[in-house]
Amino acid sequence: MAMISPSRRLRRTPFSEGVDRANPKAFTVYNRMLLATVFESVEADYHHLKNHVQVWDVAVERQVELRGPDAGRLMQMLTPRDLRGMLPGQCYYVPIVDETGGMLNDPVALKLAEDRWWISIADSDLLFWVKGLAHGYRLDVLVDEPDISPLAVQGPKAEELMVRVFGEAVRAIKFFRFSWFEFEGRWLVIARSGYSKQGGFEIYVDGADMGMPLWDALFKAGEDLDVRAGCPNGIERIEGGLLSYGNDMTRDNTPHECGLGRFCSTQTAIGCVGRDALLRVAKEGPVQQIRPITIEGDLPPCDRAWPLMAGTKRVGQVTSAAKSPDYGVNVAIGMVRMTHWDAGTVLAVRTQDGDFEATVHEEFWQ
Amino acid sequence: MAMISPSRRLRRTPFSEGVDRANPKAFTVYNRMLLATVFESVEADYHHLKNHVQVWDVAVERQVELRGPDAGRLMQMLTPRDLRGMLPGQCYYVPIVDETGGMLNDPVALKLAEDRWWISIADSDLLFWVKGLAHGYRLDVLVDEPDISPLAVQGPKAEELMVRVFGEAVRAIKFFRFSWFEFEGRWLVIARSGYSKQGGFEIYVDGADMGMPLWDALFKAGEDLDVRAGCPNGIERIEGGLLSYGNDMTRDNTPHECGLGRFCSTQTAIGCVGRDALLRVAKEGPVQQIRPITIEGDLPPCDRAWPLMAGTKRVGQVTSAAKSPDYGVNVAIGMVRMTHWDAGTVLAVRTQDGDFEATVHEEFWQ
Repeated sequence: MAMISPSRRLRRTPFSEGVDRANPKAFTVYNRMLLATVFESVEADYHHLKNHVQVWDVAVERQVELRGPDAGRLMQMLTPRDLRGMLPGQCYYVPIVDETGGMLNDPVALKLAEDRWWISIADSDLLFWVKGLAHGYRLDVLVDEPDISPLAVQGPKAEELMVRVFGEAVRAIKFFRFSWFEFEGRWLVIARSGYSKQGGFEIYVDGADMGMPLWDALFKAGEDLDVRAGCPNGIERIEGGLLSYGNDMTRDNTPHECGLGRFCSTQTAIGCVGRDALLRVAKEGPVQQIRPITIEGDLPPCDRAWPLMAGTKRVGQVTSAAKSPDYGVNVAIGMVRMTHWDAGTVLAVRTQDGDFEATVHEEFWQ
Repeated sequence: MAMISPSRRLRRTPFSEGVDRANPKAFTVYNRMLLATVFESVEADYHHLKNHVQVWDVAVERQVELRGPDAGRLMQMLTPRDLRGMLPGQCYYVPIVDETGGMLNDPVALKLAEDRWWISIADSDLLFWVKGLAHGYRLDVLVDEPDISPLAVQGPKAEELMVRVFGEAVRAIKFFRFSWFEFEGRWLVIARSGYSKQGGFEIYVDGADMGMPLWDALFKAGEDLDVRAGCPNGIERIEGGLLSYGNDMTRDNTPHECGLGRFCSTQTAIGCVGRDALLRVAKEGPVQQIRPITIEGDLPPCDRAWPLMAGTKRVGQVTSAAKSPDYGVNVAIGMVRMTHWDAGTVLAVRTQDGDFEATVHEEFWQ
């Protein structure tokens, strides 16, 4: 690993002071903002996440806010998922595509009201695309990045901790639903969601000044729960099949290639700018698709796309890989061509340290 | 400084192999790509840059290509700079603004032909804004990120090195002009430009496979010139007043605030989407503006915006700072309100390590 140079351009967050206190060992940059990646060690963080509760600074999930009479229309232009049945208080995972059906982001959208949405983004400047469309189509909508910073509480004891800070009503929040809760006189959105399979919540902290008071309240309330600062865990998210935009998919890929076809209602998502292209894809099916993959051996860090080879023929690529303590194998995510995507297919993965044996898997691990 | 976690999302470049060989001590992330920031030390790199020649992997300057009958119209929509007099073979520094006049990027545009442009971008996904506008306005233009990676050759001996690889014709390239040169059977654009004040060139390497052959050719040809791997230098660029998007300006700022009013021909840049807003700004003048600033004392790294205080009143902020060996002082870039922007004004700059004395300067240092 290399060092990262400090600069204002790599933005700190309203929770950075708390993160710094916990002495993170490494960071990544996500939406031009710092995101811790390791505290004790990736393995220790992983075990702790699966057994206790962690507080994650995920302010890097910047919000794109749509507000105004055309907000709903614009939101449907962005995604092939049919939003007609979505109610205020719901979160939807929404693939966002360009006019060719290429993935621009894979955020979670929150419908606050008929005329107000937040899009909690993955790593790309989705704001620019949304602003460009809104301007080009002369829509009656305000598009901006508000001062909202998500803080995630994840792990099996997340609910217990949240109840201590926000009260029993937290238990009633259903998966991918949200409600409003008061904290120090301010109303905050809390959703049951998060980038792990261990359960938990995301608190949409409105106002940077509220960041550290909330951080401190959670740590104080959770002392006996062994609450710790954490972050999305590289092993756990691969086990769970949680894709990472920029790693496992890019603008080159359609949602169908990413295994997100179930979120594409191309017949009914009228107005989506990528609909024509995706109708074609939906008809023919993708020629390559995301697959869980196991790899034998002692792997280097997956810092680039690793070609998947069938003999001398490139039939795909691996884009995320990590050694899983619980499953005792290297778990990985790859994009594999249809000729070789059946479970059990054995391939070679070409890394910077040479070739390793890879096997296409049926399902993700949890 | 913290460690940076490897992942495919933080993209390597066609020159990464060469950069790795030179053992960089630190990186930043720029356009979701790795950019080395230090080789020997920031100071040693600085002296070497000012005296010899360096090869910089600036593939992070991703290209946005506009191609088609409406390319010129779209290009003018993006910027308040009047492009009517621009000829093929010219480079223009072009502030890019949204409909409110807020800066989205400050790239260099290359006019390849009447219907073909490259925009060599600073750190934001300008592609998304351009694609959104093109789609919304139904323009007859293709917008994409081609496989073009700039390699900069900078320093007083840059011309000598370039002549050895590309021939005497390199000398005829004027500042902010470009020509086509052949290298191993491929035609590459070479411009006299670059993010330093030491002079030099940027080679637009077309095709990732050409990256290392060209890198190696430059190092072989420049052995006796003490050619080294380098990178934009944090000290040198502040001395020279070269702004950094994301550091010294963001979407919150107009070009006029950034001291880029001379690039705004709001009366004649008809079609620029931010023109109405900027006409207003041009009329009234900005209430804050970029200023060179000197700071006394032993500063921490400038990893966040430092408030500039006049007593208890915030009158601006410093966003870049470094200790200059040649000028024997901390050189800095800040945004200062008009009430306090006159040269000689003494203020306090509030850092994470406490307050330091700051003085507004008349001009940048070189």
